[in-house]
Amino acid sequence: MPTGHVMMAITLDGYVARKDHSLDWLMKQNTAGENHGFAEFLDSIDVIVMGSGSFRTVLGFDTWPYKKPVVVLSQSLTGADIPPELTGRVEVVALTPQDVMIEMENRGWQRIYVDGGAIVQSFLKLGLISDFKLAIVPILIGDGIRLFGDLTSDIDLKLTHTNAFPSGLVELRYKVV
Amino acid sequence: MPTGHVMMAITLDGYVARKDHSLDWLMKQNTAGENHGFAEFLDSIDVIVMGSGSFRTVLGFDTWPYKKPVVVLSQSLTGADIPPELTGRVEVVALTPQDVMIEMENRGWQRIYVDGGAIVQSFLKLGLISDFKLAIVPILIGDGIRLFGDLTSDIDLKLTHTNAFPSGLVELRYKVV
Repeated sequence: MPTGHVMMAITLDGYVARKDHSLDWLMKQNTAGENHGFAEFLDSIDVIVMGSGSFRTVLGFDTWPYKKPVVVLSQSLTGADIPPELTGRVEVVALTPQDVMIEMENRGWQRIYVDGGAIVQSFLKLGLISDFKLAIVPILIGDGIRLFGDLTSDIDLKLTHTNAFPSGLVELRYKVV
Repeated sequence: MPTGHVMMAITLDGYVARKDHSLDWLMKQNTAGENHGFAEFLDSIDVIVMGSGSFRTVLGFDTWPYKKPVVVLSQSLTGADIPPELTGRVEVVALTPQDVMIEMENRGWQRIYVDGGAIVQSFLKLGLISDFKLAIVPILIGDGIRLFGDLTSDIDLKLTHTNAFPSGLVELRYKVV
């Protein structure tokens, strides 16, 4: 089976975005000159799976940031919601997380970048996440979209790497045990 | 005015305890031989302020762990709820966070250890916390008492120290900017 991998920036209070999906709290960090390993992480994965919320946020960026294929998990979006210039690079599917993994396997994709709070929560609960590469951002925002949600049982983690950047971002990497 | 200081162990998903205040997830960590600086932190503060939930948890320990005076903020407990052997070491007050700080100042206490999820949240919202010394524990428990709650505005932090322990605990220290 393919494995799910998470790379996310979160506030110290655990949010990946405000309720309206905005990332202003992240964009304002003074991280110039820092290499947080995002490009290396993207090189290491075969496909990006995200929810419709993350998809809309990324669509709002000046340029589409991904070279790797993107699969949007959504019950509401259809192919008609994909801008023409992204045809062939982004597709919408309405599959369960398990069925997504089976579909990825059928395509020969092994390492899945699982992106977005709701999507990470659903994959994690099903045991489909192998590791986390988190950037803890030195801010508290009090409300928003959480990375972690309720679980059916505890999940033990193994810390595999830490790195503190001058901006105050702290990278923490964990494997799901 | 005195300053509020937080030292807490939290799960990676942001909980200081389960809903029933239990710390089994923390106690099971293999931290033998590690110095997390708890004794040094206690030496550095003048008084411990906690809520009734934390107080009941600490009462359940085999021995009372604190030499420093403890002030329990509670609207429901009274002096009669303090075990006789703790008389003179623990007192119950029904003050607001601001009035607690004024009372501490009147007593000449400058550095206040603010302990417990609900109490930290109320002090933080009022701008009464100066810094955090957190131990991020490598586990997700999915539900419990959160360290951070809603805020009236963002709180920017400055990372001042990090340290990763063999157990996988990561110490992160922040100053409230």
